Amino acid sequence: MMKPDKREKVRMEHDSIGTKEIPLDVYYGVQTLRAAENFYITGMNMHPELIKSIAQIKKGAAITNYEIGHLDKKRADAIVKACDEIIAGKMHDQFIVDPIQGGAGTSLNMNANEVIANRAIEILGGDKGNYAIVNPNDHVNYGQSTNDVFPSCGRMTALKLLNRAQKQLERLYEALIKKAEEFDNIIKMGRTQLQDAVPIRLGQEFKAYSSAIRRDIVRFENAKQEMSNLNLGGTAIGTGLNADVQYCQKVVKNIALISGLPVVQAYDLIDATQNLDGYTFVSGAVKACAVNLSKMSNDLRLMSSGPRTGLGEINLPEKQNGSSIMPGKVNPVIPEVVNQVAFNIIGNDMTIAMATEAGQLELNAFEPIIFYNLFQSIETLAYAVSTLVDNCITGITANVERCRSMVDNSVGIITAICPFVGYEKAAVLAKEAIKTGASIKDLILRDGLLTKEQLDIILNPYSMTEPGISGKALLNNFSENTLQEKAGLN
Amino acid sequence: MMKPDKREKVRMEHDSIGTKEIPLDVYYGVQTLRAAENFYITGMNMHPELIKSIAQIKKGAAITNYEIGHLDKKRADAIVKACDEIIAGKMHDQFIVDPIQGGAGTSLNMNANEVIANRAIEILGGDKGNYAIVNPNDHVNYGQSTNDVFPSCGRMTALKLLNRAQKQLERLYEALIKKAEEFDNIIKMGRTQLQDAVPIRLGQEFKAYSSAIRRDIVRFENAKQEMSNLNLGGTAIGTGLNADVQYCQKVVKNIALISGLPVVQAYDLIDATQNLDGYTFVSGAVKACAVNLSKMSNDLRLMSSGPRTGLGEINLPEKQNGSSIMPGKVNPVIPEVVNQVAFNIIGNDMTIAMATEAGQLELNAFEPIIFYNLFQSIETLAYAVSTLVDNCITGITANVERCRSMVDNSVGIITAICPFVGYEKAAVLAKEAIKTGASIKDLILRDGLLTKEQLDIILNPYSMTEPGISGKALLNNFSENTLQEKAGLN
Amino acid sequence: MMKPDKREKVRMEHDSIGTKEIPLDVYYGVQTLRAAENFYITGMNMHPELIKSIAQIKKGAAITNYEIGHLDKKRADAIVKACDEIIAGKMHDQFIVDPIQGGAGTSLNMNANEVIANRAIEILGGDKGNYAIVNPNDHVNYGQSTNDVFPSCGRMTALKLLNRAQKQLERLYEALIKKAEEFDNIIKMGRTQLQDAVPIRLGQEFKAYSSAIRRDIVRFENAKQEMSNLNLGGTAIGTGLNADVQYCQKVVKNIALISGLPVVQAYDLIDATQNLDGYTFVSGAVKACAVNLSKMSNDLRLMSSGPRTGLGEINLPEKQNGSSIMPGKVNPVIPEVVNQVAFNIIGNDMTIAMATEAGQLELNAFEPIIFYNLFQSIETLAYAVSTLVDNCITGITANVERCRSMVDNSVGIITAICPFVGYEKAAVLAKEAIKTGASIKDLILRDGLLTKEQLDIILNPYSMTEPGISGKALLNNFSENTLQEKAGLN
Amino acid sequence: MMKPDKREKVRMEHDSIGTKEIPLDVYYGVQTLRAAENFYITGMNMHPELIKSIAQIKKGAAITNYEIGHLDKKRADAIVKACDEIIAGKMHDQFIVDPIQGGAGTSLNMNANEVIANRAIEILGGDKGNYAIVNPNDHVNYGQSTNDVFPSCGRMTALKLLNRAQKQLERLYEALIKKAEEFDNIIKMGRTQLQDAVPIRLGQEFKAYSSAIRRDIVRFENAKQEMSNLNLGGTAIGTGLNADVQYCQKVVKNIALISGLPVVQAYDLIDATQNLDGYTFVSGAVKACAVNLSKMSNDLRLMSSGPRTGLGEINLPEKQNGSSIMPGKVNPVIPEVVNQVAFNIIGNDMTIAMATEAGQLELNAFEPIIFYNLFQSIETLAYAVSTLVDNCITGITANVERCRSMVDNSVGIITAICPFVGYEKAAVLAKEAIKTGASIKDLILRDGLLTKEQLDIILNPYSMTEPGISGKALLNNFSENTLQEKAGLN
Repeated sequence: MMKPDKREKVRMEHDSIGTKEIPLDVYYGVQTLRAAENFYITGMNMHPELIKSIAQIKKGAAITNYEIGHLDKKRADAIVKACDEIIAGKMHDQFIVDPIQGGAGTSLNMNANEVIANRAIEILGGDKGNYAIVNPNDHVNYGQSTNDVFPSCGRMTALKLLNRAQKQLERLYEALIKKAEEFDNIIKMGRTQLQDAVPIRLGQEFKAYSSAIRRDIVRFENAKQEMSNLNLGGTAIGTGLNADVQYCQKVVKNIALISGLPVVQAYDLIDATQNLDGYTFVSGAVKACAVNLSKMSNDLRLMSSGPRTGLGEINLPEKQNGSSIMPGKVNPVIPEVVNQVAFNIIGNDMTIAMATEAGQLELNAFEPIIFYNLFQSIETLAYAVSTLVDNCITGITANVERCRSMVDNSVGIITAICPFVGYEKAAVLAKEAIKTGASIKDLILRDGLLTKEQLDIILNPYSMTEPGISGKALLNNFSENTLQEKAGLN
Repeated sequence: MMKPDKREKVRMEHDSIGTKEIPLDVYYGVQTLRAAENFYITGMNMHPELIKSIAQIKKGAAITNYEIGHLDKKRADAIVKACDEIIAGKMHDQFIVDPIQGGAGTSLNMNANEVIANRAIEILGGDKGNYAIVNPNDHVNYGQSTNDVFPSCGRMTALKLLNRAQKQLERLYEALIKKAEEFDNIIKMGRTQLQDAVPIRLGQEFKAYSSAIRRDIVRFENAKQEMSNLNLGGTAIGTGLNADVQYCQKVVKNIALISGLPVVQAYDLIDATQNLDGYTFVSGAVKACAVNLSKMSNDLRLMSSGPRTGLGEINLPEKQNGSSIMPGKVNPVIPEVVNQVAFNIIGNDMTIAMATEAGQLELNAFEPIIFYNLFQSIETLAYAVSTLVDNCITGITANVERCRSMVDNSVGIITAICPFVGYEKAAVLAKEAIKTGASIKDLILRDGLLTKEQLDIILNPYSMTEPGISGKALLNNFSENTLQEKAGLN
Repeated sequence: MMKPDKREKVRMEHDSIGTKEIPLDVYYGVQTLRAAENFYITGMNMHPELIKSIAQIKKGAAITNYEIGHLDKKRADAIVKACDEIIAGKMHDQFIVDPIQGGAGTSLNMNANEVIANRAIEILGGDKGNYAIVNPNDHVNYGQSTNDVFPSCGRMTALKLLNRAQKQLERLYEALIKKAEEFDNIIKMGRTQLQDAVPIRLGQEFKAYSSAIRRDIVRFENAKQEMSNLNLGGTAIGTGLNADVQYCQKVVKNIALISGLPVVQAYDLIDATQNLDGYTFVSGAVKACAVNLSKMSNDLRLMSSGPRTGLGEINLPEKQNGSSIMPGKVNPVIPEVVNQVAFNIIGNDMTIAMATEAGQLELNAFEPIIFYNLFQSIETLAYAVSTLVDNCITGITANVERCRSMVDNSVGIITAICPFVGYEKAAVLAKEAIKTGASIKDLILRDGLLTKEQLDIILNPYSMTEPGISGKALLNNFSENTLQEKAGLN
Repeated sequence: MMKPDKREKVRMEHDSIGTKEIPLDVYYGVQTLRAAENFYITGMNMHPELIKSIAQIKKGAAITNYEIGHLDKKRADAIVKACDEIIAGKMHDQFIVDPIQGGAGTSLNMNANEVIANRAIEILGGDKGNYAIVNPNDHVNYGQSTNDVFPSCGRMTALKLLNRAQKQLERLYEALIKKAEEFDNIIKMGRTQLQDAVPIRLGQEFKAYSSAIRRDIVRFENAKQEMSNLNLGGTAIGTGLNADVQYCQKVVKNIALISGLPVVQAYDLIDATQNLDGYTFVSGAVKACAVNLSKMSNDLRLMSSGPRTGLGEINLPEKQNGSSIMPGKVNPVIPEVVNQVAFNIIGNDMTIAMATEAGQLELNAFEPIIFYNLFQSIETLAYAVSTLVDNCITGITANVERCRSMVDNSVGIITAICPFVGYEKAAVLAKEAIKTGASIKDLILRDGLLTKEQLDIILNPYSMTEPGISGKALLNNFSENTLQEKAGLN
């Protein structure tokens, strides 16, 4: 927030609270200035997309009010022109209220009403502040209330941001699929609970990540439906008092045309004004995506750990020096920033849930903090995914030899032997291998449990990574008796 | 967990860790006992529905293994019979592992394997512990891994609990709709930000609650789809090693038949084994419902505040004395317990998100805590809704007179006058009314702004609660000039 | 982040990753630019106080290195001068890295090293980028690592912000105490669970708020101790490799002198580098304060609800119009913004806990998100408290008559009668009063339980708000027999 | 909760709500039974330590009331005897109310009042239900309110559980210190951001864990002070109405004697009744400990990853089979359960914060959920630490050779060379080493930067793990010119 300097040239404006000096050249008015003074919390301004959305609503309302005879053409045209300018990105510096604000969004709504009114007055040749020409409340806000405007522009903004984030997720999905194909032949050790398990192909791992992201994309698609119901027409508490019935029927359709968003009017306007569970739900979907991204980032950091004393299975692209003291160190900075964005989203989700819960009776007054957190969650997720794709995933390379040698030396391949020798005997061999450092193959050959030829079939790495009993055809040689015998080891 | 007493009669069992005395008469074995000793955390046992679900899986696996020739009929029959007993609620006291446990569920899986094996051995006439007859790993667990069994029984359990909770939500929806009808004619004051706003009908408020709950029901329905994908057949890491291809194709279908649940095999078994975002998402849907329930409970507590120094609009049924010191006090105990359940669900959601995020590579080892929290969330929500319906909603009565008199005395009805006199003039009158205690009607008549007849039309309470400009037909009398004039008041 | 425009005049810089064009006139270098390109997440810059803190550290390090002979006077002086300029608020626009960044703070540390080096080069008459004159790593960063610099400047920043917030809390405490005195004689109804309880004085309520804030102030004081341990001297992992022993002994003392902060060197530098529980704890203290502020704000909103259909006990100062549609409406916007700040702090606390937990081995790489959230929490709390004091608390007025009449009409005063007539009889009377609307006094007189004179003593409002049995002297008239009798009513 | 069976033999009890059949042999009464029916949420009972604490309070109150003449000796003795039995663990099955309950604890308080009254009646030779002999409200609850009893017994319970948990933390501290000494000579590679950094000794790592736990112990000690203030004497809303002044002065002292706990009366009883920030703060301290435990557990799991394809630096004791399908697999089950307990504590903390925030006016009605979560957090932490000490930490062994060979092969040791050759040259060598697989030593010798003798001194592993420039004495050979030259490499 920029506190307006005392300038020589001011105009006087008044509202129910009293009279106040307003810098002559600003478009906002007395109500906006009071709000800016009451709330200096983050020092930031509201999200530009929210400002555009409210301008789209004001434009839609003006057109509707003109169509049904509540606004004359001259005023309507001027208001529409003012809105178009804001939609085009102009006058955003006139929106000076803090994103964290009391009052259920009245501050932003009046900020918009005043800026649009003053710009419309100017267009009509009047002096800013001469609200007889265009009045912020009686003309710009006609048929509206903060309580239907603010929730609606929040939802429109969420829709726009979800669309952008979804595009980034699509890009991530494509990048992962490409890597899945590229790495499809690279055999490596699978690990569960960080302990050696059984072989897997690196491509399968990236495929699994892509499957998770695909699920997130579907969830984002569904989340957008939760955001497409606007409560415009409900005015103060959803009952629609002072909103002309024709206005109620038309306004959301006009806004859909203006914004190109698939918005519709909410089924129960009273519910839509007071119950904000939709934000909690959408934040939950964003959080589920954050969880996937963070888990994947953790894996990338684990697999690329090293270069010499870690797992060292893959290499992330080197994006910047990793240390001011350790020369040559390069860190997994991109996954790390994704982790942090995810942690932040998870915290934001908590704030959103609390604010949603705190609604009382006909209104939830805490939408500003919901918007602040939800928009940040969606937007930082989009940016994080964007850098993850471009600065990490697409440049990942594999250390094929190292991956393969870890499989060959592992004890975990004993699992494939299990159907042939029984769990218990296999466990005895595994323990011995771990203790002595011997290879599983050698121990099996030593004990004459399987022949070298049989082992080559059973322990074929590729077949160990696909469903089925590896070397199943050989299984007939191993009768129930054999298994009984082995059980007899007990 | 009941620590087994030292009894004279014990059997000796061993596993890879070593040999251990097991009470002769228990069905669990050495691996279960180790787990029970390692994890004494909550002192509770695992959810009974989870135990039934794992028995359904073991039954399905045994049948499948028999069908494809990996298990002989005798053993299969005995295993199926043992499972059926557990499904019927028997031997649950043999499941002694703590719900919060390390090891990704291996403790529960082995607990089930051992109990089923020993019961099957008994059925086949053997002595408990003689695992040559039926082996927990080689027979009961054949083709399975903890890593596909445990996630699958968790999802089946979630499905069952979601079904139950959804039924309670349906009951709540019906109860709210009934109250919405019953209270449809009761005019009361609407409040935004706890400040007097404009009139609403009590029935509209209950209708709005029902609309929110309807949304929750749809979300529960969708959440169930997220839980219906089982990763059975994936074995240790989703690659399906050691799971016969035929088994993979059949086992989930068999379990669907056994359980009556609409479960299918997950599309990407590797993904389904390591990425648990589905739980985060489902918990998010449950949380969204909790938020609605808590907001509604807050409203009920506000509206029933009093009896004399609160809002006093409605009466909640008296369910118990409210104070040990203040005679006659009755508190809104049912909404209060719903609030608390909601707070708990919101905290559980955070735990679930953290545990989901913490998965590493081929497995998420933290499913036990996810299950513990998710099952508690869903189940306590169901119980809370159940008591909310039966002990609160259905018995709510309205204080019709008090509701109406608050509307009549309110200043907020000035809003309906606004289209006729302009926002600014209306604000001046409102301020005067608040300051002097005068009635809005009197002030308007005093100033000759509207006639008594006009006022009666405009301030008709019912029409103030429906969309439209109250008394719109009168509006023609109020030309643009009139409004200009009023703006001229500035 | 402002992406630097392609300018004609650039200089070439290189690092281990490669060579890159840098705008000729900027003070940051190649490593900074890479970081800014890698992380475009929030679009914001790092906290100005963090930038000042790192400059204080660099200054302290340069002085120390000069004192122990590792840096020549010329370079040391130039570095100190550059740091002083940053401390004075200059060149903050050269700090272009996003507050959410991967890499454990290396990006900010290198941003500082490069800006300081280039400014020092300039001071020494060289051309920016000629790092032979002053090298970002070998001179500015001498004896340091990101891993001791970044945590240390985070703690210093936290200390500064905690100090500022504490000052605001002190102001709030004073304001509440003043109100407690001003309202000490105003009798009003106490409510528990929103139900009428027993009388209290409005001043006692404000006194209770002040007691809670006093506790918060003490907690902030303690929290600062958790932040005063710097791990400087520990370098990369706390072992102190490459940090001269003399440097280790002196650097924190020098920084304490420079900054005026009571910082000391951490006892276990390895621990201090990897374990960030201190941030979780401090955030917990901030959260406890947020909880108090939010609860108080909720109360203020409840008590000021109305003006006509709410509790209406107090009036908050009117700070701005409350509605764009409802004329004359004024909302409790200041408490509402405090609520929202509190919700945000509670969400931030969750992010901080997650990020703290996610540290691995010798370092926690997630400090950037911890700082981002913690600094926001402390700072928005300070701003919220500031507006709460100035725009709300100090201007609160009481509706004395209304407060008193609610006490007189209440049923809750029956509690004071209880010691004289027993709980059960009292409950019967209370129920009758609530049902019939009769006054408690009348019912007691009707039943001849107490005389009017006795009632006047017992129900003296002031004595009902102080410890003790109201009218205790009268109690002797009420023998055990009387109570037995009443119990006999059963 | 066990729903009481319809038995033939019942007694009739009534309260303000009406009359109800009570099983003849139970000690609880009508109010308890209503509560049990209203709240079936978790199906569990309240914490046994909470039940003991309330009995200690009731005993203290009875003694105090006797001392000041409000209770006759016969009744007082009987009440004390009944309380002593509960303190000794008897009749806990008579406490049938759910831990999640509406009504601010009235249900538990009345449950206690009724059980104690009926047991006292029995002791005095009466029939259960004959409350003329001993009345739950007028005798057992004399001078008390749920609103001072319930918070007080919650704090006493927290104190007891914190003491227990602190003992476990002390055990953990000792175990870690022992390991720090045992492993003090084991050189291993330090890692930051999972990338090879510089050497450290395994003992230093365990020492760092112990330092963190030491901090937690201090925090627990402080947390107990937050829990030691009881609001007894405040009765319904902290004003002390109906509590004799002498009672107020004596009751907490008597309870301190009875319980052996260092409890004192709260300074501001009104504040202490309505502001529960203390629970949020204490939960924050527990959470900080959980964060440390979880981070340490993550490290233990990382360092013990393998056995062959992970870091493999340490071995955790083998506590149970790790897989039902992979023979010989052993998992880090103990650290895993600690992680899960930590996640749960972090979620609980959120619930506690929400419930604390939700207090309204003179009371916070949501203490039951706070207690449920806080007690679980502290208690599961204690159990988790207990198993961590006994089943993990004390049995950890190190793979000395592997640790050492990773240091010898690492590139990170280049950091120690840095002061001699400059950051930039060092980075070039490091990059070459990583690319070619060459050893750092060989490259330095090849380039003639240092002699073998110099390298042996500088790269002495032990000296690299202590503060200072390794081989500092050699540094004189490396003039500023040399560094300038190297900078000249640019």
